[in-house]
Amino acid sequence: MINQFDIILPPFKRGFHLITGHIEKNLKDLPESGLLNLFIKHTSAAITINENADPDVARDMGYAIDKLVPENDPGYIHTVEGPDDMPAHIKSSLLSVSVNIPITRGRMNLGTWQGVFLCEFRNYGGSRTICVTVYY
Amino acid sequence: MINQFDIILPPFKRGFHLITGHIEKNLKDLPESGLLNLFIKHTSAAITINENADPDVARDMGYAIDKLVPENDPGYIHTVEGPDDMPAHIKSSLLSVSVNIPITRGRMNLGTWQGVFLCEFRNYGGSRTICVTVYY
Amino acid sequence: MINQFDIILPPFKRGFHLITGHIEKNLKDLPESGLLNLFIKHTSAAITINENADPDVARDMGYAIDKLVPENDPGYIHTVEGPDDMPAHIKSSLLSVSVNIPITRGRMNLGTWQGVFLCEFRNYGGSRTICVTVYY
Repeated sequence: MINQFDIILPPFKRGFHLITGHIEKNLKDLPESGLLNLFIKHTSAAITINENADPDVARDMGYAIDKLVPENDPGYIHTVEGPDDMPAHIKSSLLSVSVNIPITRGRMNLGTWQGVFLCEFRNYGGSRTICVTVYY
Repeated sequence: MINQFDIILPPFKRGFHLITGHIEKNLKDLPESGLLNLFIKHTSAAITINENADPDVARDMGYAIDKLVPENDPGYIHTVEGPDDMPAHIKSSLLSVSVNIPITRGRMNLGTWQGVFLCEFRNYGGSRTICVTVYY
Repeated sequence: MINQFDIILPPFKRGFHLITGHIEKNLKDLPESGLLNLFIKHTSAAITINENADPDVARDMGYAIDKLVPENDPGYIHTVEGPDDMPAHIKSSLLSVSVNIPITRGRMNLGTWQGVFLCEFRNYGGSRTICVTVYY
């Protein structure tokens, strides 16, 4: 059985943003057990799972990925859309646009400290669409 | 319901190669909605989703990942298969060998600018096999 | 059809550890074809698929990821849990906590040289829990 729908996120500023609550409020009638796929339909953003308790982790994730994939590298050719664009593509592939989460007893079966994060890599990325697929 | 088969890709040279069309032409009778898993059965290649419009993005992806994981690092021990081998393993784990894509209205539900890429990290990687699993 | 259960791994030391055998011995009565999801319920560890033959690859993976995400970066803010903590979160997102593997003829359909690895990023990470979901 498949249940599939889109979640349209409001624009977020560049950085890592906890969206577990945003996802959960869109999930209705989850099965007893199954699997959930979150697929972000963009090439300059990503979805990741990380520490949900201390907001400093999200901040440091942004710091670390910006350092790992610097802007204004003279080796980039794809530069017409601005200095944040090509790095955003690279970060999107490094962190991934698709993640699967188990569903257990009708809820996302995340670890105690795990949350779902939108990774917004553009300075002005605008609204982002996540296709949610629940299978059971 | 599961439908599973292999796609044998022809040899590609080192770099990022758009294979959306190659995948699509092997997908027959996709369900109305479901999920597609692409699993590349190799440890020196990867599959990623990224910008499909400007070929410079694929080129810059290759540039960036080569810079991030340099060859000839004197710290590597696993060097017998050549300087491109150990970096290829590292890149494979960073970009991932397995990706899930939603199926909607009988097609891969990719974003407007999203394409599926083979990431070939070896200088002479040869033919690569992708196991495709469609579930619905 | 969904079959779901937890695997509790014993504590592993920091590094990459081949756990294919550990996973396999917990998989009973796999379907003819399907898909397997491994989801590690932690934010300072990951699961990856890589070369299973030469133990030097696992060692070099650890070397490379440690170099890519160094400890004691003065830019980190989240430092109270020790110098290995924030780098562990970053590595966890880079390598991913969730991986899907096809099942074919009742077995994980890994390539000849592919194995499943626990990536333990903490110095003393303790026991780790993997939620296994088999769907077919």
